[in-house]
Amino acid sequence: MMPAAPPCCDVMRAVLYRGRLRLATDRKIPVPPPEWALIRVHTAGICQTDLELMKGYMDFTGVLGHEFVGTVAAAGDPRWQGQRVVGDINAACGHCNACRSGLGRHCPDRSVLGIAGLDGCMADYCILPQSSLQAVPEWVSDDRAVFCEPLAAACEILEQVAFTGSERAVVMGDGRLGILCAWVLTTVAGDVTLVGHHEQKLAAANWTGLQTRIDATGIPAGADIVVDATGSPGGLQEAMTLCRPRGTLVMKSTVAATSALNLAPLVVNELTVVGSRCGRPSDGLHMMVSHPDMPLERLISARFQAEDAVEAFAMARLPRALKVLIDFHIDANARAGAADPS
Amino acid sequence: MMPAAPPCCDVMRAVLYRGRLRLATDRKIPVPPPEWALIRVHTAGICQTDLELMKGYMDFTGVLGHEFVGTVAAAGDPRWQGQRVVGDINAACGHCNACRSGLGRHCPDRSVLGIAGLDGCMADYCILPQSSLQAVPEWVSDDRAVFCEPLAAACEILEQVAFTGSERAVVMGDGRLGILCAWVLTTVAGDVTLVGHHEQKLAAANWTGLQTRIDATGIPAGADIVVDATGSPGGLQEAMTLCRPRGTLVMKSTVAATSALNLAPLVVNELTVVGSRCGRPSDGLHMMVSHPDMPLERLISARFQAEDAVEAFAMARLPRALKVLIDFHIDANARAGAADPS
Repeated sequence: MMPAAPPCCDVMRAVLYRGRLRLATDRKIPVPPPEWALIRVHTAGICQTDLELMKGYMDFTGVLGHEFVGTVAAAGDPRWQGQRVVGDINAACGHCNACRSGLGRHCPDRSVLGIAGLDGCMADYCILPQSSLQAVPEWVSDDRAVFCEPLAAACEILEQVAFTGSERAVVMGDGRLGILCAWVLTTVAGDVTLVGHHEQKLAAANWTGLQTRIDATGIPAGADIVVDATGSPGGLQEAMTLCRPRGTLVMKSTVAATSALNLAPLVVNELTVVGSRCGRPSDGLHMMVSHPDMPLERLISARFQAEDAVEAFAMARLPRALKVLIDFHIDANARAGAADPS
Repeated sequence: MMPAAPPCCDVMRAVLYRGRLRLATDRKIPVPPPEWALIRVHTAGICQTDLELMKGYMDFTGVLGHEFVGTVAAAGDPRWQGQRVVGDINAACGHCNACRSGLGRHCPDRSVLGIAGLDGCMADYCILPQSSLQAVPEWVSDDRAVFCEPLAAACEILEQVAFTGSERAVVMGDGRLGILCAWVLTTVAGDVTLVGHHEQKLAAANWTGLQTRIDATGIPAGADIVVDATGSPGGLQEAMTLCRPRGTLVMKSTVAATSALNLAPLVVNELTVVGSRCGRPSDGLHMMVSHPDMPLERLISARFQAEDAVEAFAMARLPRALKVLIDFHIDANARAGAADPS
C-alpha cells in the first residue's frame, strides 16, 4: 500500500453546488477534527441523490458526493495512515440512543457526507470520522470499491426484511440503484425480476438468476416483495399493484417532489412499506467480496477527470447512463485491484 | 337464547345506497347458499367506511353495513339456529392460498359484507358463511357486541406489529376507530397518547392508562409507533413527523381520495408503514370479554330506528358523533346483556 501524499498546499479542487454546479479550484482543504481522518479521494461516483440535491432536496449547498474510494492522508490514529478506505457517509455523535443501538445512520445529530452539514467527497480531499471508515482489501479494485456505498444501500434491504429464500421479488427501476438491489436480492430470494424501460440498462443488469423485463406488463401480480427504485414519485403507486396482500414494498427512492398518491390499496391489502436508505459499508464490502462475479464494473457508463465534473453530471442525467465516475487521484494499481488471493 | 323468528314474508327493510341513500321497504330477503346462514339483524353500526363508500370508494351500490349483532334465523347446520352472532365481514372461498394460510380476509375471490359484492347488514336480514360467524357469549350485551367488527379492526394492529410492552405509541384521530385503537394499544404498550381535535370525543375516550391531547403540538417526536386513524388524506404526512427513525406507522384510514404526499421522510428515517384493515372477529370478541371495563357503550352517540336510517347517517357525519347505531330487531334482554358470570 502506497502512503497517500500529504496535501501540498491548503486549497483543492471540489465539485461545488450553490444553486449551480461548478468545479472550484480554490476550496480550502478540510481540517479533520480529532478522531477524524483526511482522505485523499481516488474516485467518486454520481448518485441519483446528488441529482435530487440539485433540485432542492435537503436544501444542500456545498461540495457534493458521498460515493468514493480513497486513501487516508492524515488521521489521529496513525494506523489509518495510508490505508485505502471507503466510508459510512453518516458522521454520527456516537453517544445517543440511536448510536448506542448500532444505528448511527439515524443519529439525530449526524452530518451526512455531501448531503447534510458536511462537505462531500467530490474533491481532492474529504473528511470522515475514523469510526466511519472501512479498510478495502487489496484485491478489491477501486472500480469495485467505489460501489461500496450504493451496494450497502441495496444490502440495507436484507437488514430490514427477512427472507426465507423462496420469495418472489420484483425490483422496479433499471437505474444504478435498482440494478444493485436486484443483484443483492438475487443472493437471497427465490425468484427476482428487474423491471425497467431501457434495453441497454437491462442488458447491463444481466446476472446469474436475474430475470429482466422491459416493462411491468405481464408480470404476475402477487409478488412477495416489490422494491421501488424508480426514483419517480409515482413508483410506489405502481409497486402497490404488483404486491400480494400482506406483502412488502421497499421504498428506495428519495424524491424531492410531493406526489399524488392513493394509498387505499396499501390499507385494503395490508401491505407493509419499508423506507430504506443507506446501509453499512461493511455489508457492501462483504457483498462484493463474497460475490466476486457480481459485475459491478459493468455499471460504469463513463468516467471523467475532475476538471470535467460538470460534463460528468450532464452525462449522469442522461436516461441511458448508469454509474458515472469522477477521478481525482487515480492509482493504476488500486484501480485494477491486486490479484484476488483466493 | 330465544330462537330468531323466521322471516314472515319475502321482503324486508334495508338501507340502500345507489348514488343516494334511502330505506327500501321492499328489498328481497336474501337466500343463503348452502353452508351460509341467514341472520336477523338486531343492531348495525355506521362506520367511516360506509361514509367513504358513499363518496365513491369501491364503487359500491347495494345494502350498506358491516357492523352488526344478530341472531341466526336459518342455517344449513342446525346448531347455528337461534345463536346470537357477530361475523367476519369477509366471505372467503376457503380454498385458495390466502384462505389456507388463515388469511381469508385477503382471499382474492372474497366478497365483503356491505363493501364489495355482498349486501350489507343494515337490513332486517343479511347472509354470511357459517364459517364467518362467531357466537356471542350471553353475558356480552348487544350494545357491546356490535363493536366487535371495529374492535377487531383495532386488534388487527396486534397481529401485524410486535409489542414488547415498553413502546411509546401515539394514535392520531379521535373518531370511532381511533379511540378503539388507542384502547387496544393501552393493553399492550407502555405509553399511549390519543390525539384529536374534539374535546367531547377525547373525554369519551378516557380510560385507564390512556393520555389524550387536543392536538399534536407538544407531543415529543420519536414515538415508536404512530397509528393514523384520522380518516384524512394528510394523516400519514403528520404521522411521519411524530415517529422515531426505524419506527412504525400504522395506516388505519381507508380514504377514497388521492392526496399529495412527500414520502422522503419515510425513506430518510427508514419508517415502516403497515396498512391495516379488518381483523378477526374472534380477536374483537376476546378483547371485549377480557377487558369488561373497556367502556365501549360510551362510544354510542345516538341510536335510530331503521325507519330513520337516513337521519342516522346525517348524524354520523357530524364532527361530534362517535358511534351511531341503527336498530332493526332489538331484544331487550340481549341489548342489556345477561349478568357477567365471572
